[in-house]
Amino acid sequence: MTDFDLSPWMTARLQRVERALESWVSTQGDDGAADHHAPAALVDAMRYAVLDGGKRLRPLLVLAAHEAVASANQSPADNAALRAACAVELIHAYSLVHDDMPCMDNDVLRRGKPTVHVQFGEASALLAGDALQALAFELLTPQDGSVPPSVQARLCAVLSRASGNAGMAGGQAIDLASVGQPLTLPQLRTMHELKTGALLQASVVMGAECAGASTAQMQALKAYGAAIGLAFQVVDDILDVTADSATLGKTAGKDADNDKPTYVSVMGLDASRAYAATLLHEALQALASSGLPDTRALQALARMVVERSS
Amino acid sequence: MTDFDLSPWMTARLQRVERALESWVSTQGDDGAADHHAPAALVDAMRYAVLDGGKRLRPLLVLAAHEAVASANQSPADNAALRAACAVELIHAYSLVHDDMPCMDNDVLRRGKPTVHVQFGEASALLAGDALQALAFELLTPQDGSVPPSVQARLCAVLSRASGNAGMAGGQAIDLASVGQPLTLPQLRTMHELKTGALLQASVVMGAECAGASTAQMQALKAYGAAIGLAFQVVDDILDVTADSATLGKTAGKDADNDKPTYVSVMGLDASRAYAATLLHEALQALASSGLPDTRALQALARMVVERSS
Repeated sequence: MTDFDLSPWMTARLQRVERALESWVSTQGDDGAADHHAPAALVDAMRYAVLDGGKRLRPLLVLAAHEAVASANQSPADNAALRAACAVELIHAYSLVHDDMPCMDNDVLRRGKPTVHVQFGEASALLAGDALQALAFELLTPQDGSVPPSVQARLCAVLSRASGNAGMAGGQAIDLASVGQPLTLPQLRTMHELKTGALLQASVVMGAECAGASTAQMQALKAYGAAIGLAFQVVDDILDVTADSATLGKTAGKDADNDKPTYVSVMGLDASRAYAATLLHEALQALASSGLPDTRALQALARMVVERSS
Repeated sequence: MTDFDLSPWMTARLQRVERALESWVSTQGDDGAADHHAPAALVDAMRYAVLDGGKRLRPLLVLAAHEAVASANQSPADNAALRAACAVELIHAYSLVHDDMPCMDNDVLRRGKPTVHVQFGEASALLAGDALQALAFELLTPQDGSVPPSVQARLCAVLSRASGNAGMAGGQAIDLASVGQPLTLPQLRTMHELKTGALLQASVVMGAECAGASTAQMQALKAYGAAIGLAFQVVDDILDVTADSATLGKTAGKDADNDKPTYVSVMGLDASRAYAATLLHEALQALASSGLPDTRALQALARMVVERSS
């Protein structure tokens, strides 16, 4: 089980995801027929925000979780998983667009390119983010019979809860309120569980839903998702201190500059590294306890989250 | 059929909608149990944006369409309709919050109160709008078995398409691009079909979906929704010129000040009034052709849209 090479696995999945995003974030829309209504300028800003950039960690988690469960259950339903993968990425992309705006983080660089509001103006960035959120739910509810309605409903339920006030948006609100505030470790953890963790965990859950995971499988995958969700943020905080802007593709040292509490500022650098390693161990343990026969892609993605350099 | 009194009908429905919004836009969330995660400050801004204001036209359309079809089909499923009513209102509310922001219309007054960004700051307004959109899809996907998954999926499909780049957000993008631009009447019409019409029509469609409308019933109700959607905007443009800020609860004369094309600026005031009357006639004709036995509430709502003074 240790001879798994993530690289070709990833390349094939990334190609599918990029091709799907390219086709679905367009004036043609999801339904294939040209949509004469969708205004080109808005779609341009949406495409700029989504295409040709990003590590696509969330889509990869959706697909890996789907495959881990589907191989155990002999369930294909792979159109649903691709849609879920893209929907989660659209939510992530919209959150970055809004987060970068002047009234939030006021960031001008993202993935090595000018941020959306710098490129298209603030009003267009606001609308593009709003439209990306709506498009995520469009992707989850195709009208062509390719995804069973019960799966559509479950995916919308999971994604909306992970995005809203008890998920990502709620975490961002806590983040906003915490600038210049000393946070305890549990408070910092809660903030990140919502801000980043909820959507990463939802990615795993949505992939598993598409393959009809059992309760026990789902419980193990939720634990895996929670652990890598936290690990992702701990490593993000470490990289904010240790990496440079060119490597990150965004402004390094920003959190310290903004006087934001981070794992590094609260725990110190060494303890943060140790914590990331512990979380990786927890994630791998959860997979081992899942009873799923082949979780190698999920294992490799967990390692990638913790060992990444950008 | 002409002795229908809208007022008591409305009062009873408005009470249900207000009570439901009050309970669902809260830190308790939809699922009843206290949610320890939802940050109170964000929920405060969301509640401020939604509660205790607004004519609730969209929820009333959802409920009236549901009742018109349900009385014909003997279908109750009334929890679904109430959820759809509130979900549409949350989308409307989020669009107002974002629309009022400095980078968009920069409006400081809404429903007679300071706008959300004036009251809570721009970053909180941005997040509250984002979270309201997500909450709309949460409401449509209850996990308590009260709404069949197939209805949940259809409602999410309709609402997401009406909100996104081929609907409301797309219309706002055209609106944004049109400031200071002369628009032809067809261009103006397309803009409003997307910006306001799509969500008003979706309200009618969602209500009808909850009651299992037939294809013929749905077609008639879609025509009704399209006509009142346009009528709503024509009347809005008329009121922007003829009413004062105190009556409107928002800044009057704003469109002319912003050099925005309106029905009045393109057609003139008298022709705009005649157009509104024609659209009302179209809406009533569509209802008459629907085969539905009792459409009195829908008829009265169409009259209200055209004859309102604010």
